[in-house]
This record gives sequence, C-alpha cells and structure tokens, in this order.
Amino acid sequence: MKTCLLALMLSMLVVACGNDNAAQQATNAHNQQTYKWKLVTSWPKNFPGLGTAPERFAEQVNVMSGGRLQIKVYGANQLVPAMQVFDSVSAGTVEMGHSGSYYWKGKVPAAQFFCAVPFGMTAQEMSSWLHYGGGMALWQELYAPFNLVPLAGGSAGVQMGGWFNKEINSVDDLNGLKMRLPGLGGEVLSRLGGVPVSLPGGEIFTSLQTGAIDATEWVGPYNDLAFGLHEAAKYYYYPGWHEPGSTMEFIVNQEALSALPDDLQAIVRNAARAASQDMIDEYTFRNIAALEKIQALEGVTIKRFPDSVLAALQQTSEALLAEQAAADPEMDKVYQSFLQFRAGVTRYHNLTERAYLNLRAD
Amino acid sequence: MKTCLLALMLSMLVVACGNDNAAQQATNAHNQQTYKWKLVTSWPKNFPGLGTAPERFAEQVNVMSGGRLQIKVYGANQLVPAMQVFDSVSAGTVEMGHSGSYYWKGKVPAAQFFCAVPFGMTAQEMSSWLHYGGGMALWQELYAPFNLVPLAGGSAGVQMGGWFNKEINSVDDLNGLKMRLPGLGGEVLSRLGGVPVSLPGGEIFTSLQTGAIDATEWVGPYNDLAFGLHEAAKYYYYPGWHEPGSTMEFIVNQEALSALPDDLQAIVRNAARAASQDMIDEYTFRNIAALEKIQALEGVTIKRFPDSVLAALQQTSEALLAEQAAADPEMDKVYQSFLQFRAGVTRYHNLTERAYLNLRAD
Repeated sequence: MKTCLLALMLSMLVVACGNDNAAQQATNAHNQQTYKWKLVTSWPKNFPGLGTAPERFAEQVNVMSGGRLQIKVYGANQLVPAMQVFDSVSAGTVEMGHSGSYYWKGKVPAAQFFCAVPFGMTAQEMSSWLHYGGGMALWQELYAPFNLVPLAGGSAGVQMGGWFNKEINSVDDLNGLKMRLPGLGGEVLSRLGGVPVSLPGGEIFTSLQTGAIDATEWVGPYNDLAFGLHEAAKYYYYPGWHEPGSTMEFIVNQEALSALPDDLQAIVRNAARAASQDMIDEYTFRNIAALEKIQALEGVTIKRFPDSVLAALQQTSEALLAEQAAADPEMDKVYQSFLQFRAGVTRYHNLTERAYLNLRAD
Repeated sequence: MKTCLLALMLSMLVVACGNDNAAQQATNAHNQQTYKWKLVTSWPKNFPGLGTAPERFAEQVNVMSGGRLQIKVYGANQLVPAMQVFDSVSAGTVEMGHSGSYYWKGKVPAAQFFCAVPFGMTAQEMSSWLHYGGGMALWQELYAPFNLVPLAGGSAGVQMGGWFNKEINSVDDLNGLKMRLPGLGGEVLSRLGGVPVSLPGGEIFTSLQTGAIDATEWVGPYNDLAFGLHEAAKYYYYPGWHEPGSTMEFIVNQEALSALPDDLQAIVRNAARAASQDMIDEYTFRNIAALEKIQALEGVTIKRFPDSVLAALQQTSEALLAEQAAADPEMDKVYQSFLQFRAGVTRYHNLTERAYLNLRAD
C-alpha cells in the first residue's frame, strides 16, 4: 500500500488543471476506494427466487460501481444462522442482510407489518405504502435503534393457502388440524382450535408424508413444486389469506452505509429497488409454469377455502392484530398507518385491479 | 482540453504500481469521461406521474454515476414534438426518450402490445412478461432496425373507463357516442357504432363541457382530477377495459448506449427498472387520494359498465387483435407470445391476486 501513496497524491495533483473535468477527476480519485461487504441471508445459498434476488442485487451493484463495491452473498448458516441475520447486521459483524422482517417479531413486534400480516396488502400495494404512503419512514424509525436501514427486498406475490391432507369444509375442520403455519397465521389457526407447528423447511415434506402434520403452507407453486409437496398431500387450497404479499427486506448496517460515498449509496438503493421488482417478475413467471404442472397432476385437487372458513379466519385475524397493536404503542403507530392505507387501496383496487381481473376471468 | 492530456497520461502511469487498486485506478482513469445526454418525452415537462418518472430517472443516474452521465429531460415540444420522440432517438438527434410504444403503431403495429391493448395485462403482469416471459426480447427485436433499445418505463395501473355525459345501459348506447378514445380502444368503439375522436390533452375539458364529445378517457383518478374532468361530466365509469396496465417506455439510441462503459450502461438499466417500479407506486398512492375526493363529490356518479357492454367490448377487442395480427407476421409473433402469457397469468392470478382481492373486498 505504501508504495502507492505517492502515486495517489500525484494523481490527485495532476488533475488540478483547468478544464471541466477537474472537479470530477478529483472526486473520482477520492472515490477510488474499494469496499468489500458481506451480505448474509435467511435462505439456503441460491434458493430459487428468495435466494437469487440478493445474488442479482450484488451482481448489479458490482457492475454499476465498476467494482468499487463488492458484495459477497452468504446462504443461511454459511456465516451466520438464518435467524441471526438481524443481529449480525445490527452489530456490524456483516454489512448487509436479506431476510423477512416478520422473523424479528420477538424483538420488534411492529416489524411484522413490513413483511406480511394476514389479510394485509398485495405486493403492489405494499410497495406503494412503503415508498409513498409513509410505510418506509415508519420502518426506518423502527430499525434505527438497531443501527439498521431497511429497504424493500422483493415479493413472491399472493401466496397459496397451503397443502392439506384433510378437506376443509367448515370451521370445525380446523379443530385439531396440525399445520405448519408460522407467525400470525399460526396464531389465528390456534384461536380456531388448530395446532400450528413450527418446522424448518427441510423437515416439512417428511412430516406431511408421515402424517406428523395434516397440512403446511410454504411459498407458492414454484417453490412448493420444487419441494415435492404435491407428492405428500391431496389438496392444494387457495387463497393465501395469511401472506397476501409478503415483502422481503434488505437491511444495511447504518455506519457501513454512511461510510459509502453518495454515488455508492445511491447504487445500493437503486439496485435494491430494481431487485425488488425483479423478484415479483420472476415469481409471477415461474408460478404460472409451476401451477400448470400442478393442475395437470393426478391425485392433487385445487380447492378454494369455503366462505365460512375464510370469514372466520378474517374475523379472527383482525381481532388478533387489533389486540396486539393495543398492547404495543410502537406497533399501534404502524398498525394505524397500515389500516388507513389498506382501506384506501381496497376502495381504489375494487374499481381497478379487482374489477379488471374479474372482468377478464369471466 | 489539451492541457489535461499530459495530466491524464501521467495519472494513468502513476497508478501502475503493484497493489490491488492499480487495475481499479486505471479503469477509473479510463472512465473519467463525462457524457451529457438529452432525454425527450411525450409529456409536458414535469407532467404529474408520467413526466416526473423520467426526471427521477435522470436524477438517480446522475447521482449513481457521480456526475459522469448527466441526462437533461425535455418536455414535449421543448426540443421535439411529443410524437417525434421515436424518430429523434432513432436518428440519434437525442440519446433517449420516454413515451408510450402505442404511439408508434403507424410505423410498427406490433409495438402496441408493449404499451397497452384492450383486455391485455396489468402492470405486474406486463413487467413479468417483459422481463421473464420473453416479451423484452421481442420488443428489442422489433426496435433494433430503428437503432433503438427499449426499456420498461413505468405504469399507471389499471385505468378507469372514462368520463361520460350519457349513461351506458346497453350496447345500443354506444351507437353514435362521440368519445375521445385513441388507439385500439377507439377502433373497438367504432365497430360498435361509436365515434372515436382524437383530441390533444389541452382540448379535452372544453370539448366535454360544450358537448362536442359525449365522453373521454384520460389516465386515472389522479390525472383526471387534476384535469377537472369531474366538472364537465356526470358519470365516471369503470373498469378501464381499453388500457388495463399501460406500460411506458424508455428508449435509448443504440450507439449512444454502446458508447457507454459497462458501469454506466448498468446504471441506465437499473435506474430505469427502479423508476418503473416507482411510477406504479406513486400512481397507486395518488390515485387512492384522488378517488376519495371524486367519491365525495356531488354530481358525479361512479358506475360499472353493464356486463352486456363489457362482453361486447371484449368480443370485439379480441376479434380486432386477431385480425390485425393475421395481417402482419411481425405483429403475429408478438401476439402469440402475449396470448400465451395472458392465458397462463389469468389462470394463476385467478387463484392468487384475483381470489385474494375478492376475499378482502367482501
């Protein structure tokens, strides 16, 4: 390094000549520093969809920065366990993470709203709430004490309701139902007599096949098909009331972000925005193909949950959210913003997205 | 400039020392060139939504490139007329444009599919078709002979059906209806006995108020309200069958793009992707607020087109697209890709987006 100090000083001196590019060249000299970041994720390395998004993000940052910001992506457990992404970025052990904010509800209950809550918003609606409806400011405020800057990190779209080995014809059929359904969805099921089970991804298939669980949700047709869930269950239910538009998160260590020059900060933000849109684009495409395969399978029946069941799930979900928000002022602040935006966008999409999708499908 | 040549050569020489940053510094020296581009649009300067997107794009490119790519945005007629954006970028008079591909249907009939066709796809669906479903490759192929590289440039979402001073209770009510409705939508109206009228934005309000036209479509609640259309019409119809997810375009002159170093090319592409998502985010947010205002107005009734009218419009639209595609092999190629994707995404969204929006609205 020492041998280059003089060279660097020289190169900074020689640019001090009187043309338009002088200031620019000085800036460039100042910006020649190369940054190497680590990005940890909650997904297996290159996990289809969720895991490929941070890879694409890192690749685009590398190209856009001309190699000045190099981000290495780690799968879950390669560097830190899946559920330690938040803490590791917060502590500055690593500079970035890609995960889902609902994993941190034990630490920050309000964080769930920035990923998915039952009967919440779709991917398109979430993106608008975050970037224009005040959601992002609330998220930033929530993460600031942890030294974290959140950015939207993509969505898989409206999920399916899950794979079942028991038909669900009434609310009574939820009674005693053992289902792998984490988070708030699981709490709703529990209130209706079901038994939510927590299982890591790798154990779902066997548990479903052996009858240790009666049902499971996972992500959607693309990831579900790859997991082989159609070989372990008879019914594929819709719609995914529990996760209508789960939004993933990029989290950046505050000091690491601030230490970057302005151009690299903007590159990180724009790359995240682009990767975010890319994820829903990819999931939409791959879900179409996967659903076609599932629909062609013998032995799998695709069914809509009965109205009575959906009504009970909705009522229970709304009550649960209201109770949790009432008990936590920080959560209540986010909840009120969420409620207001959801009401407005429901009215608007009734006349546009919803009316049009219904028209086209008839 | 001459006085700097020696300095530049010197600065390139001095970085030839043996540390990790040597190659990087050489690259930076090579990349110190500043590019100044002109971007012409088909919208008035800073027109809300459509016109603010290219401004944001240019701003982000400027910041991300550290000022090395400076893009100046021109409103319609400031440099070239709104309808000469395609030709100007094609000729290389300017480097970039922001417009809608359906404006070029006289030159390239197939181009309409990359903006909007009646009973086509929503914003989210279009983005997936373009970026994963093969749409973008077809678009690039279509524009290559014109020396143009297309990029998705944002969407305003599913439009409203338009403002009417005549109630539409049956297909007969379309007979003789004078409506400002450009493009394929206008041709559909014409086949059903209506009279499509072509009017520049600035003449719509007065024409509607004086009765020179009976109806008009524009963009959606946000832009419609700003235009004051609620003061000139009684009925606001939905859904916008004619433009379900109009996608705007960035077009880049092929030589101008190729002349950029890799990092700046990637910055242009990612900034376009981010600006694209930003537009639908902004429109969703602003349409919610505008619709609330419109719903509160006395004297304006929001109505859904009757089923019989929508069915006639759909049947006529499908026949028209099939006829046009049959007459133009280039268009047919795009049409087949469009048909296949629309069928697949309709099946998929029936179980997800549509099922969920219906559930939440009930």
